[in-house]
Formats: sequence, structure tokens, C-alpha cells
Amino acid sequence: MNGRAAVRGPWRIGLAGLGVVGGALLKFLAEQPDFAPSGERAAIAGVSARSQKDRGVDLSAAAWFDDPVALAGSPDIDVFVELIGGSEGPARAAVTAALKAGKPVITANKALIATHGLELAKLAEAQGVALFYEAAVMGGVPAVKLLREGLVGEHVQSVVGILNGTCNFILSEMERSERGFAEVLAEAQKLGYAEADPTTDVGGFDAAHKIVILAALAFGGAPNLGAAEIEGIAAVDLIDIKLARELGYRIKLIASAEREGTGASIRVNPALVPLGHPLAQAGGALNALFIEGRRIGRFYMQGPGAGGAATAAAVAADIADVIAGARRPVFQRPAGDLAPLKGADRAGHRDKAFLRLMVRDRPGVIAAVSEALAKAEVSIDSFLQKPVEDSGHVPIVLITHPASAAAIAEAVDHIGALEAVVERPRRIRVARI
Amino acid sequence: MNGRAAVRGPWRIGLAGLGVVGGALLKFLAEQPDFAPSGERAAIAGVSARSQKDRGVDLSAAAWFDDPVALAGSPDIDVFVELIGGSEGPARAAVTAALKAGKPVITANKALIATHGLELAKLAEAQGVALFYEAAVMGGVPAVKLLREGLVGEHVQSVVGILNGTCNFILSEMERSERGFAEVLAEAQKLGYAEADPTTDVGGFDAAHKIVILAALAFGGAPNLGAAEIEGIAAVDLIDIKLARELGYRIKLIASAEREGTGASIRVNPALVPLGHPLAQAGGALNALFIEGRRIGRFYMQGPGAGGAATAAAVAADIADVIAGARRPVFQRPAGDLAPLKGADRAGHRDKAFLRLMVRDRPGVIAAVSEALAKAEVSIDSFLQKPVEDSGHVPIVLITHPASAAAIAEAVDHIGALEAVVERPRRIRVARI
Repeated sequence: MNGRAAVRGPWRIGLAGLGVVGGALLKFLAEQPDFAPSGERAAIAGVSARSQKDRGVDLSAAAWFDDPVALAGSPDIDVFVELIGGSEGPARAAVTAALKAGKPVITANKALIATHGLELAKLAEAQGVALFYEAAVMGGVPAVKLLREGLVGEHVQSVVGILNGTCNFILSEMERSERGFAEVLAEAQKLGYAEADPTTDVGGFDAAHKIVILAALAFGGAPNLGAAEIEGIAAVDLIDIKLARELGYRIKLIASAEREGTGASIRVNPALVPLGHPLAQAGGALNALFIEGRRIGRFYMQGPGAGGAATAAAVAADIADVIAGARRPVFQRPAGDLAPLKGADRAGHRDKAFLRLMVRDRPGVIAAVSEALAKAEVSIDSFLQKPVEDSGHVPIVLITHPASAAAIAEAVDHIGALEAVVERPRRIRVARI
Repeated sequence: MNGRAAVRGPWRIGLAGLGVVGGALLKFLAEQPDFAPSGERAAIAGVSARSQKDRGVDLSAAAWFDDPVALAGSPDIDVFVELIGGSEGPARAAVTAALKAGKPVITANKALIATHGLELAKLAEAQGVALFYEAAVMGGVPAVKLLREGLVGEHVQSVVGILNGTCNFILSEMERSERGFAEVLAEAQKLGYAEADPTTDVGGFDAAHKIVILAALAFGGAPNLGAAEIEGIAAVDLIDIKLARELGYRIKLIASAEREGTGASIRVNPALVPLGHPLAQAGGALNALFIEGRRIGRFYMQGPGAGGAATAAAVAADIADVIAGARRPVFQRPAGDLAPLKGADRAGHRDKAFLRLMVRDRPGVIAAVSEALAKAEVSIDSFLQKPVEDSGHVPIVLITHPASAAAIAEAVDHIGALEAVVERPRRIRVARI
């Protein structure tokens, strides 16, 4: 299964992509070439990257490849590590080439696995080689191994967590420093916590890639990005963070997958989490995950969701697993038995919602808002009116009792149409946890 | 490595011990014989237990063995599962027999692994078969897999957690219901949360077995029970729980292993944990664990530390790993390279301590206590004096700044010798977390 049963000497690693994680992996292998439990050695035999700049590690023993696909197919490597990123282009081509050449592949590429996981799993299993991707989800937190091996046979009901450290940092920092999204994002970019083009992170897509992979492992399907409902954090206002807090909640970017029939309801969106809940307390760049299952009840873990050293350690753990030579399917079951995980019809879902309005300070407004909610058959769980703002407008926030998305949308329409309401109400889901 | 590369048909499991976990495993395998990711089946082929009473599962297809050693050596089983318990006697004899017969062994027996782990690992590795024990530590929480595989190559600095659900339940319940240890223990026994002979749990020995195993995996040695300092919870008074709380702490039975030089400082004892800390919030029968490492920083997980279904799921995960056929050492490294983990000299350790005194209500007492502390060169971090109790005595609690165990002991001696102090001061460590 590991593709080189009879070879002696160190395992020859081909590494494509020398960014933060790639650089940390070079350092890991240079410091601890014998890290595998068996004591067998692993060494970088070939590298490919966009530039040959110095990474502080002696690469003179490794062959340089301008083309990652050529590296992937090279007869001089035993294992191919893909740290290029992106669901298409060179990453996809190189991973496919390595598998076709009968080489085990390790990747940190969540977009690739979330988008083409089933096709690649079929290829890997047909070739009898491993395709591992621990580093693709939650960085140094072994969520993939946990679901694939630790909870094997478990009937998982839900997987809910904080899977994007950039968004978690931005939301934490907005609350801490009482600054708006744009300002904190700019700072995060300066600190290297956010990319120059932050869309993948702040748009919720990175978290969506990850929850789609976890859902596949948890519920026994192949990743299906199309089944995910995705909303990012760019529209979260500081005032919502502050008002949510007064009602006893913190706003987090929550990724969740809940089993429904033969499919799953998969969502990424900003959501209110009660302040006392562990997910509310996982601040900064942490990642956190709850898994609920029939036998284990509730399992929780949190740790570093990103960072070069932690993510490189996850890649190294996968290398050790290749060396250990376990015969495992890529997902929960052999790929031939899998279909893309079905999305769930959410019409019947009933969630609590946080609604924030800006109204003109005049008599009768609260009665009008209550009536608008009642017309949509949405009832109120808690309510908070704040003093008049400089704008002359009054912020009102309320949390509804659980109601369908359609009913909430209707209520928002009714409220938005009121003459005293000066802008369309902001709606944020309350997390089901 | 898995001991039957060429056999077809279901994997034949021999199960010794049909208590709560054994019964749950019977149910698991009856419901999901094809739970292994490869789809290969596993079925109970032989059982051994003290009585043949009905367990609600049809065992007619399984051979009955009065002697677990005979079951372990039977040619009609492929994998031996030991759920008998105890470090000596039939459990040790049967595990040894199975390994000698070249069969992979799975055990939930923490006492056995903590006491004879190195000898059994050497035997298993010489025979080329697996010896897995995920269910021995933290029930349904895959702590063993995490340290052995997820954090391979990591330089772990410390492992600190709550590893005994019975003690955690008792301490939580003492606080909740404001009842004393003996009364809550009796209730726990009635509810089945504590054994008729509770010594292993409340004496701290069960937690010690577990932390000794985790320390071996974390620091690269063999389990060394002799290196552990062990103190149970029987001496924790309700008044200490209440007073600790007023100072912002909760008392938990904390198991910890900290790397020191080439060894580790391993301790199990009641300790104060700040109320806001996740370990303080893991109540009831939960288990929880912090792992701190050079690359991952701080990793935390919590889940069900016991319970038949959760622990049986851990056994099943080990069965799946046997089926997957990975070649892994029993501990972090091949047993031939391991020595029992060295204990650390604790003379240089400096911990904060909680001291609780009962004093006569008279002038000058506090000055005398302060002087006694100063004489031992122990300084005070926080101090609380409560109103006179019915006994006519006044409880005083204080938390010291970090000081050596010798200095604290000296301070306790000085204070205990004061005329106004009516009983020997109670001392509880403040956890280093």
C-alpha cells in the first residue's frame, strides 16, 4: 500500500510549494529526519516552488523542479507532498500525476480535496496508494484522523466548529479593540494573519472547504462543496458584536454539518454563540470543534488552526502514517462506495435569529415591530432597546424564538417596510449548539 | 503485522471480560459488523467471562471459554480483546498468551499497561503483532492515538488533565449539592459511577495509571508507575471546595506530566484550577486534557472518559486499526529503544499552595500566621478570613506565591504549631496551568 515495500534508506519526499508550511516542513525534516515511530528516516529528495529564494535550510541534496508535475512523477521520490494550494491548476495536476505514478500523496489543500476529493480518492485507491490531508483541516489539530480512525463506526450527528483562524482573529479583535471590520482586516493583513486577497478566508470559503471535508468523513459521503450554504463575515458590524454581547452572546464564524436523513445540512455563517460556551471562548487564531455522536456523546477539541510549524507537524504525521503503511480508504469508506454527500432541504429548519434594527425615536415603534413579527408568526425571546445614537436613530435588537428561515425572512420584510425603520434589519443566526 | 494477511471471511474476535464495556462491544459488533473502513467484517468468535448470564446479545455463534488464557491461545480467533482488568492474574496471563500465540491484542486495561507495558510491548514487537490500548485512557476520547500518531515528532512539554470521571463526578457533586465526600461517594456507588471498592478511583490510582501511559507516549519512554506521586480525593473537605471557590478556584483531581530533562514530573493530586479555565468547567463524568508542545502550542480536548458505549467504541477503533494493518510500535518508539520514563527530582519545583486553617477567634492570629509564613520564606498571594463558625473557630484560607514543597511544608509546620491554630492546616496545590 505504501508504494515501496522493498526500498531501503530514507523515504524520499518530493515537496511542491515552499510557502510558510513548506518552509516549516523543510525545517521539521532537517531537525528530525527519524521522527517516524519506526525510526525510518525521511528526507527531502526533490522540491518545486515558484522561486529559488533561500528558505534557511540547506536544499543542496534535493533536486530542483520548475514543474511540480515533473516532481510528482519523478522516479526519485517515494512520497509526494503538495503544498501549492488551489483546487485547479498545478496542484491538481501534480497530485493526479503523483497518484498515477503510484506514489502516496500528502496535501494541505482543502480546496482541492473539497472540490475533487472523490475523483482523487478513486484514483488513489485504484492505485493502492495513500492520499492523506490532515493538514487541510484545522492545521495542527488532528480532526481528520479523529473522525477517520478514532470515531470509526460512530454514528455522528453533528460537527460544529470554528475552522478559520483569520475570521476568528478578526472578530475577536473587532470586539477587543472596538474597531470596524475594514480596519481590523487591514491590520490582520499587515500582521500576516490575512492574505492580500482575503476573499477565501473572510468570504467563508476556506471554512466551507473544511466543513465539507469533515462532513464527508463524519457522515460517510464524498465532499460536496455545492451542498454548503456559505456566508462570510464582511457584513458583521461592530454594533452587532457589541449588542450581541449585551444579550449574552459572541459572534463567531460557525461552520456546521448536521446529519439529516441520508445527507447533511452544511452551513458556514456568522452566528451568535452564548458567552459561556467553549466555542465563544476560543478566541484569536484558535480553531475549535464539537463532534456529537450516538456513543461518544459530545467531544470537543481546540488548538492551533494554522501556523507553519503546527501545520507542518500535521503533514509530518501523515508522512509517518505513510511509513506505517496502513491500508485505509481516503474517506470513511472505499471511494467506489461513496456518492457526494447530499445537501439537506432547510425549509423545515427552525433557528433562533438575532435581528438588529435602527429606528426613528418616536412613540409606537416597538408596537409596530412586535406586530410585524407577529404577522410572520415569529415570537420574541429577548429584546433590548438602546439609547438614541448620534445619528438620532435608536438601535433595537431582539432574539427570536426558533422559526423557519422563511418566517424570519418574512418578518424582516415586514419590519423593513415600517416607516420608522431607517435601514433593512440586520439578521444573524443564533448557533444551534 | 496484523497476523493474518491471507485469511478471508470475518475477523474472528476473542473477547475476555463481559462487564459494561464488554457488553457494549458485543452490541457494537452485532449492530455494525462491517464498521471497519475497508468494509471487512469483524465478529465475536469466542468469549470468556466469570458467568454465562444473558447480556442481551446472541452469543450462540461464539465458543465459550472458562479460561481466558485458553481463549487467548485459541487457533479460532484472529484478535484477542482483553476487558478483564487488573495488572496481574488472568488479564496479564491471557494478554501474554495471546501475544505469544502471535495474535494482535487490544486491551482497556490501564493497570496492566502502566505496570507491564514495556515487557508486553517487547513481546508484541518481537512477535510482529499489534498491542493497542486506546480504551485504557479517557474512554471514548482518542488520547492515545492523538499522542502516538497525531503528534508524532512533536516535542511535548506537558500533558495535564482530568482523567478520572468518578473523582470528577464526586467533586462536582460535592460542590453542587454542598455535601461531604462520604455521602456523595455513597450516592455515586448507588448510581454505578463508583465501584463497591472505590480505592482505585478515589485514591488516584486509576488516574495515575492513565497519566503514566500518556507520559510514556508524550516523552518517549516506557510507562513507569513508580515515578508518579499519587494523592486521592478522600481528604478533600466540602469547606475547602467552598473556600477555594470564593477565591476564584475549583478543586479538581489533576493528573499531570511535565517534561524535565530526560524524565518527567508525574503527579496526581487534588489541585485548585481557576474557575475560568476549561479544566474547571469540565464537570461531572467528563475527562479533559491539555497537551502543550513546541509546534502545536496548546491543544485541548474533552469528552466522555468512561461509559460502556464510548469505551467500546475505542476498542472498536483499535480493531479497525488492526484490520488496517499499520506497522506501529506500541509506544512512541520501538520497545527495544525504551527505558522506563525517569521521574524528576521535585525539590526545585515551585508551586502556589492553598492553605486552610481553623483558628481561635482572638487578636493577633493573623499576624502570627503571617510571621510563620515569613519564617519559611513563603509569601502570600491572596487571603480570606471568614466569619466565626458554629464551632467557635474561624476559617482562614490563603494562597501562597510559588514556593518549594519544602518551604510550604515548613510553613505548615510553623503554622500548625501556633497555639491559636486548632488543627493541622490543610494544604492543596494550585495547578500549574
